[in-house]
Amino acid sequence: MQNGKNKRIYIQDVAVRDGFQIEPRFIPTEQKIALIDALSQTGLAKIEVTSFTSPKAIPALADAEDVMNGIQRVPGVIYTVLVPNMRGAERALGCRADELNLVMSVSETHNLTNLRMTREQSFAQLAEVIDYARPSGVALNVSLSCSFGCPMEGAVPKEEVFGWVDRFISLGVHGITLCDTTGMAYPTQVYDICSEFRQRWSAAELTLHFHNTRGMGLANALGAIEAGVDRFDASLGGLGGCPYAPGATGNICTEDLTHLLGLMGYDTNVNLDALLACARQLPAMVGHEVPGQTMKAGTVTDLHSKPEWFEEVAERARQKQAQQNSLATSAAQAAAL
Amino acid sequence: MQNGKNKRIYIQDVAVRDGFQIEPRFIPTEQKIALIDALSQTGLAKIEVTSFTSPKAIPALADAEDVMNGIQRVPGVIYTVLVPNMRGAERALGCRADELNLVMSVSETHNLTNLRMTREQSFAQLAEVIDYARPSGVALNVSLSCSFGCPMEGAVPKEEVFGWVDRFISLGVHGITLCDTTGMAYPTQVYDICSEFRQRWSAAELTLHFHNTRGMGLANALGAIEAGVDRFDASLGGLGGCPYAPGATGNICTEDLTHLLGLMGYDTNVNLDALLACARQLPAMVGHEVPGQTMKAGTVTDLHSKPEWFEEVAERARQKQAQQNSLATSAAQAAAL
Repeated sequence: MQNGKNKRIYIQDVAVRDGFQIEPRFIPTEQKIALIDALSQTGLAKIEVTSFTSPKAIPALADAEDVMNGIQRVPGVIYTVLVPNMRGAERALGCRADELNLVMSVSETHNLTNLRMTREQSFAQLAEVIDYARPSGVALNVSLSCSFGCPMEGAVPKEEVFGWVDRFISLGVHGITLCDTTGMAYPTQVYDICSEFRQRWSAAELTLHFHNTRGMGLANALGAIEAGVDRFDASLGGLGGCPYAPGATGNICTEDLTHLLGLMGYDTNVNLDALLACARQLPAMVGHEVPGQTMKAGTVTDLHSKPEWFEEVAERARQKQAQQNSLATSAAQAAAL
Repeated sequence: MQNGKNKRIYIQDVAVRDGFQIEPRFIPTEQKIALIDALSQTGLAKIEVTSFTSPKAIPALADAEDVMNGIQRVPGVIYTVLVPNMRGAERALGCRADELNLVMSVSETHNLTNLRMTREQSFAQLAEVIDYARPSGVALNVSLSCSFGCPMEGAVPKEEVFGWVDRFISLGVHGITLCDTTGMAYPTQVYDICSEFRQRWSAAELTLHFHNTRGMGLANALGAIEAGVDRFDASLGGLGGCPYAPGATGNICTEDLTHLLGLMGYDTNVNLDALLACARQLPAMVGHEVPGQTMKAGTVTDLHSKPEWFEEVAERARQKQAQQNSLATSAAQAAAL
């Protein structure tokens, strides 16, 4: 396992979209804007700001336009938005999103369950969105749900995933996100799929989107990095969740990933302290604990002070040892006589 | 990242010692015995049964003798016990432990804080225990706390760690455990230290003991495996904790590790379903949620059923698509005319 040697890894936060969308408490628009503005200052490569879905479907993100129009954009940060259909694309372009993130599932059952369409219907709809949006010059990314398995169908053959990748790349999208929607991916699988993807589509921007549902999220990120992946979705505080696994954690945690990669010698361009300050606002904002670990434990370099009684105990131990040493020396001298 | 190709990895559970020792609620002796007996049937290589410390210091494990004498030993499983000093060694041998696990810290500050002795005093005391226990033929393992960093001192030089390893190996112990006591290790560091250890002491039984304090536990296990390590301490349900990080998780979780390694093609010899059944008893036993993820989410191969309304929605989508296809065919035919 090699040191990262300052290789750049791009970190993309999805908490305000993938995390907030399932929070039962509506996060006030001004709080969303303030959090995004704070995140914009941390050095993240991309922020998924909101979703242009029907407000009836996802009331938590009903303020999509207000959030997009309220944030202060920082040059260099890509502000991306989730877009399910043509109406969403119109709204997103109306707000000058930097990127449209289109989504469908590579599992027929999951696509029918989640989007109530066959995959072919989703593809046709997204192809229309791509046709419509391309002239605007906006960046186009496609997120493929269940790329590492479907919670209802089980394994999804790699060739099935690559078939959809190929169709979207042929339509001219610049980026593909392979999503492990319900935390089924494991490191050797991730390595294999990512290696082949990189070989077949070396020019495409490839993002990996992991959930930590079964605790494998960061291990999967290492598998992806070994295969040459340099771009990850992650969620501040580990927000997000999995409707199929109550009590399970959500997306991989942005600050835990950033902390890990920094220690391993990668350049994430992210100010970890600033990111942790953002994460520590979350519990009050969402009204419950969040899964992030580094925000609770501190970083590896955050040292703890010695207990108050330390010096007294240490002094007593040292005195005792000095006595033992002097006894040992006397015994050695006696033996030498 | 290579498939494990059925390489054997030895899983050692420490929950009833490292986990239970910090639980505020005393776990009744018969519950401990029943849990250990259930764990003995899962295929684990080793179980750390209890600690022969003063009952005043760790009241949660005051029933060490009763537990050791009450369990049903399964051939092939090593029953190890923590032993801090000579009195503990006498008690452990009196209960016919298979292995004594001796402990000290490679950080002077941590050793003084945790054991109230200098490291030299700890070493002298453990050397005495080793001398005393060796004739009995009992296996002897030394656990070195803070091998990847001290929460008060910070980084611990690798040569410092290896100095203590060398001194204990010279005394004839068969096994060494490098403990990441407060979750400071990271994968590239783990890989480097473990690679060098394996090179210098190829005959020693090397165990890695990780905590998941900052979410890096399973990633660290992958770093260790890449360096040739084949033996891990882990804790059922992820029980255990870190007094320096309230809210942080404890040891790496036995069933999450077993699940991960199985998916990657390693042979852990562990029946995961039986292990999960044990883990799912824990919340009622300790009176709170535990960090394990697989016990909540199920394994990757535990499929979920489709929602009740699935067939109706799917049928409607398919009909709509058939109409679209037939319209498209008509249009194509019309165009061809």
